Amino acid sequence: MLFKVEMDVNVPPDHDPVRFEQLKAAEKTRFQELQCAGTWRHIWRVVGQYANVSIFDVGSSAELHDILITLPLYPFMSVRVTALCRHPSSVHDDDR
Amino acid sequence: MLFKVEMDVNVPPDHDPVRFEQLKAAEKTRFQELQCAGTWRHIWRVVGQYANVSIFDVGSSAELHDILITLPLYPFMSVRVTALCRHPSSVHDDDR
Amino acid sequence: MLFKVEMDVNVPPDHDPVRFEQLKAAEKTRFQELQCAGTWRHIWRVVGQYANVSIFDVGSSAELHDILITLPLYPFMSVRVTALCRHPSSVHDDDR
Amino acid sequence: MLFKVEMDVNVPPDHDPVRFEQLKAAEKTRFQELQCAGTWRHIWRVVGQYANVSIFDVGSSAELHDILITLPLYPFMSVRVTALCRHPSSVHDDDR
Amino acid sequence: MLFKVEMDVNVPPDHDPVRFEQLKAAEKTRFQELQCAGTWRHIWRVVGQYANVSIFDVGSSAELHDILITLPLYPFMSVRVTALCRHPSSVHDDDR
Amino acid sequence: MLFKVEMDVNVPPDHDPVRFEQLKAAEKTRFQELQCAGTWRHIWRVVGQYANVSIFDVGSSAELHDILITLPLYPFMSVRVTALCRHPSSVHDDDR
Amino acid sequence: MLFKVEMDVNVPPDHDPVRFEQLKAAEKTRFQELQCAGTWRHIWRVVGQYANVSIFDVGSSAELHDILITLPLYPFMSVRVTALCRHPSSVHDDDR
Amino acid sequence: MLFKVEMDVNVPPDHDPVRFEQLKAAEKTRFQELQCAGTWRHIWRVVGQYANVSIFDVGSSAELHDILITLPLYPFMSVRVTALCRHPSSVHDDDR
Amino acid sequence: MLFKVEMDVNVPPDHDPVRFEQLKAAEKTRFQELQCAGTWRHIWRVVGQYANVSIFDVGSSAELHDILITLPLYPFMSVRVTALCRHPSSVHDDDR
Amino acid sequence: MLFKVEMDVNVPPDHDPVRFEQLKAAEKTRFQELQCAGTWRHIWRVVGQYANVSIFDVGSSAELHDILITLPLYPFMSVRVTALCRHPSSVHDDDR
Repeated sequence: MLFKVEMDVNVPPDHDPVRFEQLKAAEKTRFQELQCAGTWRHIWRVVGQYANVSIFDVGSSAELHDILITLPLYPFMSVRVTALCRHPSSVHDDDR
Repeated sequence: MLFKVEMDVNVPPDHDPVRFEQLKAAEKTRFQELQCAGTWRHIWRVVGQYANVSIFDVGSSAELHDILITLPLYPFMSVRVTALCRHPSSVHDDDR
Repeated sequence: MLFKVEMDVNVPPDHDPVRFEQLKAAEKTRFQELQCAGTWRHIWRVVGQYANVSIFDVGSSAELHDILITLPLYPFMSVRVTALCRHPSSVHDDDR
Repeated sequence: MLFKVEMDVNVPPDHDPVRFEQLKAAEKTRFQELQCAGTWRHIWRVVGQYANVSIFDVGSSAELHDILITLPLYPFMSVRVTALCRHPSSVHDDDR
Repeated sequence: MLFKVEMDVNVPPDHDPVRFEQLKAAEKTRFQELQCAGTWRHIWRVVGQYANVSIFDVGSSAELHDILITLPLYPFMSVRVTALCRHPSSVHDDDR
Repeated sequence: MLFKVEMDVNVPPDHDPVRFEQLKAAEKTRFQELQCAGTWRHIWRVVGQYANVSIFDVGSSAELHDILITLPLYPFMSVRVTALCRHPSSVHDDDR
Repeated sequence: MLFKVEMDVNVPPDHDPVRFEQLKAAEKTRFQELQCAGTWRHIWRVVGQYANVSIFDVGSSAELHDILITLPLYPFMSVRVTALCRHPSSVHDDDR
Repeated sequence: MLFKVEMDVNVPPDHDPVRFEQLKAAEKTRFQELQCAGTWRHIWRVVGQYANVSIFDVGSSAELHDILITLPLYPFMSVRVTALCRHPSSVHDDDR
Repeated sequence: MLFKVEMDVNVPPDHDPVRFEQLKAAEKTRFQELQCAGTWRHIWRVVGQYANVSIFDVGSSAELHDILITLPLYPFMSVRVTALCRHPSSVHDDDR
Repeated sequence: MLFKVEMDVNVPPDHDPVRFEQLKAAEKTRFQELQCAGTWRHIWRVVGQYANVSIFDVGSSAELHDILITLPLYPFMSVRVTALCRHPSSVHDDDR
């Protein structure tokens, strides 16, 4: 099942930069694990924002929920989730 | 250059169904031409809506503008365009 | 998979009342078919509105999309879809 | 009387995690008490959010108000209340 | 049970003035019937708008729904319903 | 002159509970004084919110302004003011 | 009593230009009558819009309501009303 | 040149009251200086809000900008600026 | 004086294409006249929209108002006007 | 490629004024560097706001992203990016 997930990261003005870099590194590790597994199929940066547009391919809504709320940067994110499905006109197998 | 384009199709209540099916067929032909060319890289349906989320890869903003405004269904669409760029954490070459 | 679907029906001011009653009857038949099948698990009216709040339990997002866009009153509806999942505190088996 | 209640929990960035876990445990206890009593009829998680969609069945608006404002996590919640009523097409007795 | 109901009347630009005056007369008759019965407890005009703010006192949400959707001008109204309850500081018995 | 005033109280997360209870007690005293005087004609709680809907009957806009900004809880309130007037269909003298 | 009234005129695309010019002339006559009487104290155009910002000085909310809803162009207007009062720092007598 | 300027003052909950009173006094002095000069032509309070609606008459946009950002209370304000011009129907010379 | 003007053109679905092309040609002629005169300093298309972002340099707000409301396509436009001024850091003389 | 970038600077109420002046000076230096390079083609102040409207001309979306997120004041900015393209009616070469 496909979902568009839009994540905005709101860095608190008085954050501890060392701790935040650690969280960013942990986020990157977790992201690449999920991308290699095919779960986090796509990610793009939104120009000028600390934000991304992502496409997830998960077995269930619950799986997506568990992935999102355990992301290292989740406490600093606002997240919008939109259910997608394959477009009948697509000629690409992987726009499933 | 990458753009997220979100298209909502607003079918006028008193449209001519024959004419509209012709436009939909023309839209599909144009879409597949652009998808095969690698310009309209991805398309997904938004669940429950006559709407899609698409990713375009174009040479310039002007090229995207010309593609969008000449789509057969453009007069019935509302369109939102967001500039994207490659995410530095991505391990996929084609999330460019 | 669970989804909250909120449907607002916008009756066009110049609609044909006979035709509209036929669509409402067809909508009711289709609804009860889906409710008996366990797909359209819950429906409630929103007080003072021609609108409902519904819970769907479907095998996939695509199944939900196909159900919604073929509802007899769909051309008169605006629809909002929200992905849900089971709450870990629930003691009811059917809040799945 | 039926109400849809949507609760978003806003965890303050500088909260005391021990205190917050205590409040969450108290919230769960209170929730299950109300669910077993049939008052908090349904609860679902919103995917990707610290939020739920709930259906309450109460004797009066005042009863609902008293329940909501005494929830252990209420000070951290934003709450939206919508009055519902039974849908005439429903075939289920408990969509009352 | 108390509800605040806010009604905005949207007069269609090409309405039939005779028919509309008939509906307004029917609306006034129905309103006064409900006001005398104590159901439509209060009504005020919003300055500069074809709109009112009303307080209803009904036995159930379903009763309110049935009253509202059968108002003669309902097809021209947009309606917002808010559940209220008695304020504990009130010294008036009838702010129930 | 009649006004609808909607007051939302935003309790700061780190407020001093003793001080806040004192302000609430002062607010209640002031409210009852104004209600007995006929100035604060009606008050209702909004279900699930720390908020009220009120009707004021004042001699002038300036009088209303002075009452509102000197309420003990005013620094914690967001306030929306709407000018009302008597509805010509009302059969009640006191919906003036 | 002072009110800020913001009026946006929405000219229907298929209006009858002769009839509309008659209404505009009637609107101007009525406006000047009210301005000379001191009721419609100020009027300014909003740059680039068919809209104005006005200040009214009326004896009561009901008087303002009656003035606004009988304006010749009222059926084409959307109107926002805000209650004002004299600012204590003003040195001008007529900012009453 | 005429501008409508709407100023909302947001008093920070933990402000120093002595310092704030000094700023308010400085704001009043500056306001009266500008009002006497004819630059800050009108000011009204918005009922129930710590906010005003003002009309400025300035030689240029830059002059208005410099006036606004140097107001003593500017750091606590949110400001909305709307360009106005004389209304052709006005009979008053000073609604210029 | 500088203004940012954002214009969205809303083509009515049942417009007369011949008449609309005439208006577009007249709009282009008027635009170029104003651009050559230095009044309409800049214009850019918004990608994917029938809309532009423009910068005007005019002697007064009234001049801008007269220019905008007499544009051939004005009846089909929604327009947003924002007053600008020279930025003190600019090194370009013509960002005046 | 052309982009409109709108930047609002939100000065935190408890900022260190010395540190903030240093950031402003660094911002100005960086801005002028980019303006002289032709990348930050235009900048204007929004009247009454700590905000600007800018036009960027960059080789790619990624270049714009890198420029924006490394601006010295970026942590205090909210930024809106809109893709633009040359308008076909423009007579100026540099409205490219």
